[in-house]
Amino acid sequence: MLTDFYEITMANGYLAYGYEDKVAVFDMFFRKIPDNGGFAIFAGLEQLIHFLTNLKFSEEDLAYLRGLGLFSEEFLTYLKNFAFSCDIWSVPEGTPVFPNEPVVIVKGPIIQAQFIETMLLTTVNHQSLVATKANRIVRAAQGMEVMEFGARRAQGYDGAIYGSRAAYIGGCSSTSCVISAHEYGIPVTGTMAHSWIQAFDSEYDAFKKYAELYPNNCILLVDTYNVVKSGVPNAIRVFNEVLLPQGKRPIAIRIDSGDIAYLSKKARRQLDEAGFTDVKIIASNSLDEYIIRDLLVQNAAVDIFAVGENLITSKSNPVFGGVYKLCAIEQDGELVPRIKLSETIEKVNLPHFKRLCRFFSKDTGRNVADLVTLRDETIHVEHGITIFDPVASWKKKFLTNVEMKEMLQPIFKEGKLVYNMPSIDEIRSYCLEQVGLLWDEVKRFEYPHKYYVDLSFKLWDLKNAMLAEMGAQSEEGQ
Amino acid sequence: MLTDFYEITMANGYLAYGYEDKVAVFDMFFRKIPDNGGFAIFAGLEQLIHFLTNLKFSEEDLAYLRGLGLFSEEFLTYLKNFAFSCDIWSVPEGTPVFPNEPVVIVKGPIIQAQFIETMLLTTVNHQSLVATKANRIVRAAQGMEVMEFGARRAQGYDGAIYGSRAAYIGGCSSTSCVISAHEYGIPVTGTMAHSWIQAFDSEYDAFKKYAELYPNNCILLVDTYNVVKSGVPNAIRVFNEVLLPQGKRPIAIRIDSGDIAYLSKKARRQLDEAGFTDVKIIASNSLDEYIIRDLLVQNAAVDIFAVGENLITSKSNPVFGGVYKLCAIEQDGELVPRIKLSETIEKVNLPHFKRLCRFFSKDTGRNVADLVTLRDETIHVEHGITIFDPVASWKKKFLTNVEMKEMLQPIFKEGKLVYNMPSIDEIRSYCLEQVGLLWDEVKRFEYPHKYYVDLSFKLWDLKNAMLAEMGAQSEEGQ
Repeated sequence: MLTDFYEITMANGYLAYGYEDKVAVFDMFFRKIPDNGGFAIFAGLEQLIHFLTNLKFSEEDLAYLRGLGLFSEEFLTYLKNFAFSCDIWSVPEGTPVFPNEPVVIVKGPIIQAQFIETMLLTTVNHQSLVATKANRIVRAAQGMEVMEFGARRAQGYDGAIYGSRAAYIGGCSSTSCVISAHEYGIPVTGTMAHSWIQAFDSEYDAFKKYAELYPNNCILLVDTYNVVKSGVPNAIRVFNEVLLPQGKRPIAIRIDSGDIAYLSKKARRQLDEAGFTDVKIIASNSLDEYIIRDLLVQNAAVDIFAVGENLITSKSNPVFGGVYKLCAIEQDGELVPRIKLSETIEKVNLPHFKRLCRFFSKDTGRNVADLVTLRDETIHVEHGITIFDPVASWKKKFLTNVEMKEMLQPIFKEGKLVYNMPSIDEIRSYCLEQVGLLWDEVKRFEYPHKYYVDLSFKLWDLKNAMLAEMGAQSEEGQ
Repeated sequence: MLTDFYEITMANGYLAYGYEDKVAVFDMFFRKIPDNGGFAIFAGLEQLIHFLTNLKFSEEDLAYLRGLGLFSEEFLTYLKNFAFSCDIWSVPEGTPVFPNEPVVIVKGPIIQAQFIETMLLTTVNHQSLVATKANRIVRAAQGMEVMEFGARRAQGYDGAIYGSRAAYIGGCSSTSCVISAHEYGIPVTGTMAHSWIQAFDSEYDAFKKYAELYPNNCILLVDTYNVVKSGVPNAIRVFNEVLLPQGKRPIAIRIDSGDIAYLSKKARRQLDEAGFTDVKIIASNSLDEYIIRDLLVQNAAVDIFAVGENLITSKSNPVFGGVYKLCAIEQDGELVPRIKLSETIEKVNLPHFKRLCRFFSKDTGRNVADLVTLRDETIHVEHGITIFDPVASWKKKFLTNVEMKEMLQPIFKEGKLVYNMPSIDEIRSYCLEQVGLLWDEVKRFEYPHKYYVDLSFKLWDLKNAMLAEMGAQSEEGQ
């Protein structure tokens, strides 16, 4: 029932007109990469699968819909007996994806394929947004750990829970969100709030009590009063008095305010001089990929970054604009392509039932380009392949010695789940590995190289023929 | 279990040291109004109440926590028998609120009052964010209807569901999100997708079938091919052929792309000339408060605005930065104030257990100022009252003929709910009424007047005395 109302009014309409079993094909794709980045990370498939395998309407749902007075009893009975029977293909979670290529394809009775639109988009848009942002932040941290700390600033509970799942897929190493950690097996981390320090008579006393209680996980927050004069000296005193006699080593200190670059270097020196060269410094305080990059440029002595609101809401770009468009529909027993006109040529969608191929160089192992083709095309790469820019079609490139990989995996076949969901750690590793195969030029933050997403000759021809025909029909613009 | 891990490690600590029943007072407040606006709208209390009245730990939760190897059995037993016993005060949902004033106060055993931090903040931050944004958009629409259409771009399912609740509180008239509509009794709206048009042989055919099915709710999407040449003429033809013979009137047409200002005026003329002066025009397409304002400046012939991603994620400012700070703690049976130092004086929190009063002019009925006081102060307004700016304390103002209203309502008393939750329609009406009492200068988008949130003399004195004392203790900065 998390759906837009029009999905239901349309479904009722398809049924009323006997269109319910007409086969339609919908693509999910997106047009713009968040933060003007070079790629996005696809995520959310597991929750989409969970939704589709549990899709049914309760008596209460049906009573509500009946009460609206808009729907036929035949339709309400249809919903009551709803049995999902579509085919779905998707790229695996953690895959780097690019604008205008299909990342999910749904094929099946139009009444069903249309109906799942809102849930599919909400799920994939949200998690892809956060996974993409997390991956940017993790790349900025250049191999240092990034902890996800954003629950309190998330947009709702699921924003926190699925957001921290997506952040882990994108490369974060842990979360502060207990329910996510529990549900998805993500490592959980956390230290103390300033209120812990304030609840005791002194900072020293608060630190001491914490260290006595958690000698194996001792992380102290050192900025409640004054990092250099009070926080770090008190931490060192407690490490010496409480942990060392037990043969334990402290884990870290955390700095949550002030000039992190300056304070971290001061604190590092204090820790080192006291013999705590192994104790890490965690920084948190409205961090994002740019501040982290800048901290590293300044040689800040930070070992771990804890990132909150800028990550969990993808604050600088809080919407992932995935769309879901009809690209083919059955007519007289055959799939015929559909296209939607638009004022700007880049916004026209790709017609027909398609495939997505990715080329990897056999020399370097790197990703070199993606190719979108018609479903039944055979693409040969043994003797090289010519690709061309779909807008500036005179720009061609001949690829040799490449391997081709089919990117869209079968997920549902006639409504039956046919996909073995990898574990979250497998997804995370796959993500980091695949990002590793992208050229650095695609990964930079400023003016990244535009990765090639080209069309097969047949698809390009089809699209242009359809546009020419529709243009002729509706010649006059505004 | 939607909580930050540190809430649990701290709770375990408070119990271990016998601090669990020490009474603490926490304030929730925020420092910055989203989008540089003049006020925010408080929302989320109903979900917070729901959470607190259902707060318990399952065996599975406890098994997970036990498995982490950090917590004592005594603590796990404490959680198992957890019984909420705090007092909570809150401003009602829909209240306009301002920076640095307490909007929720929690008083109770520190172990509990600390523990609920994450859930309280996630709930109130999210819904206040969306209610605030919705109210901006509704104000820009100057009395025209605003529909919430954002589910597919929301940050997760709750982002959509509670977001559309908050949007309704802020003044939206309806939502496209079926589950929200059902759950909260919000009017539901929706039309059709472009795919409906594309699924039929022609736009005319698609319109005709829709009108035949929904003669009482006929809203047609007219921009699939060409608004002026095709969409509106086909809509008019179908209105004439299908609806008029049945004695029905169409509701509206919807334009979802192109130059809304230009197209709406053209379409208006076409509709009027065909005798459909009562048929409304709905506009949707990445709208926000600025685009709506601009459309009205251009005399766009739009009657209803449907707003998606910019509303549901508060895209231009997707974080509401509410914080939760310890302001008093029991010592030797008495509450003593606490304050947290910070580098910037505006960031220092207000110490001690407090009240929030709001003054309304008896002449105009308008809000004139808020005053934060100590809990046990008596404020007399019969003979006027002098208020002063807490930073620039020489700026004083004498208020006469004002009425004072206590803004923080008791919600829980020793863990028992003592508040009658108003209906969502009551909340929405209250919100619009209270916003109506604010001066226009506070409501404008550009450089709004800063509403007075002043401190009582006693609170101001306490704060400054505490700062002076702490400053003396920790004199040296970086």
